[in-house]
Amino acid sequence: MVRTQITRIPELASQQRGDLDALLDSALVGHFALQADEHPVVIPTAIARDGDSVLAHGSTGSRWMRALASGVPTSLGVTMLDGIVVARSAFESSMHYRSAVLFGMCSTVVDPREKRAALDLITDRLLPGRVAEVRDPTVKELAATLVLRLPIDQWSLKISADWPEDPDSDLAGPAWAGVVPMTVTYGAPHPAPDLSAGIEIPDSVRNLGRY
Amino acid sequence: MVRTQITRIPELASQQRGDLDALLDSALVGHFALQADEHPVVIPTAIARDGDSVLAHGSTGSRWMRALASGVPTSLGVTMLDGIVVARSAFESSMHYRSAVLFGMCSTVVDPREKRAALDLITDRLLPGRVAEVRDPTVKELAATLVLRLPIDQWSLKISADWPEDPDSDLAGPAWAGVVPMTVTYGAPHPAPDLSAGIEIPDSVRNLGRY
Repeated sequence: MVRTQITRIPELASQQRGDLDALLDSALVGHFALQADEHPVVIPTAIARDGDSVLAHGSTGSRWMRALASGVPTSLGVTMLDGIVVARSAFESSMHYRSAVLFGMCSTVVDPREKRAALDLITDRLLPGRVAEVRDPTVKELAATLVLRLPIDQWSLKISADWPEDPDSDLAGPAWAGVVPMTVTYGAPHPAPDLSAGIEIPDSVRNLGRY
Repeated sequence: MVRTQITRIPELASQQRGDLDALLDSALVGHFALQADEHPVVIPTAIARDGDSVLAHGSTGSRWMRALASGVPTSLGVTMLDGIVVARSAFESSMHYRSAVLFGMCSTVVDPREKRAALDLITDRLLPGRVAEVRDPTVKELAATLVLRLPIDQWSLKISADWPEDPDSDLAGPAWAGVVPMTVTYGAPHPAPDLSAGIEIPDSVRNLGRY
């Protein structure tokens, strides 16, 4: 596929499926693109990898989710920022990132058991262990939820994880160079104002801070 | 514009330009969508707001940047995740997020002074104060860089910042509910292996950790 060829800075390209999976398993959100009324539209949504596909879900009332479910061609971008590359010049300064673009068409998860498993996976992706702590979804809740599956088939991946690459003329200069790591951290949990007395913070929430 | 009407969960919609600017000023990356060969393509790229427009930049050798520069219709998605909404059921669990979608066409910043100012703004957006610490860009560097400007004109914005909204039947149950905040933090800077001895960490990098 021409679309998945990385034509620029090929040294950043990775063909490693393991690298792709690691990215998809560390990002909580992706951006789907689709064409609507002759104009591109970006749709941000929570994602969760399920083996060889990426799951997304939303309300059956969402126009864009329904459009994706109709099987139109789509592209999914998933990006994680891992740091700031501080080079000796503005030109060479950049970021540490991992960025994937997937291409294909979504299908709708219809089978009730598959749909329930997909939703459990999405819930536990956001908050590992949470499924075991909450009640089962109701029939009405399941019916109100659209679950989409995009196969991991056509994709490209770029990983920037190197030191700044300054030319010799700048290496001799006075400017500092290095990398500042960026990470997502979870703060202390805030209990809801209407939480009943005596309900302890569950393990899923406690463990989140340990990521 | 029909595209910018939020048809789902309208209570999340914000019409406040200040909210949009706050999001654009806190996100470092956005995802552009464009249609190429009858297929949508997502292009992740660093962004920086400049008054009433959003700047992006890339190599003049990048096929996708050149496609955006040609003035095709595009859509830019910008999302920040601010927390996990832990509801008493999987169905009501979600995220705190701010998410904008802009629509329009990019123009290329051609005027040399405007281009230099745009690149300085992009550099200082990534690392505030860095422009004053590094040498000027060379003519060759400026020529190798494509700077795009997307007007802030047609846009929609959704903000999720509330407590879980569990039905009464779940409020009486045993499950915990609350919010776990998420933030991006900067770690200790790593000096480049080829950094000359005696060059101190600059203010721009030192100040980053204080965000």
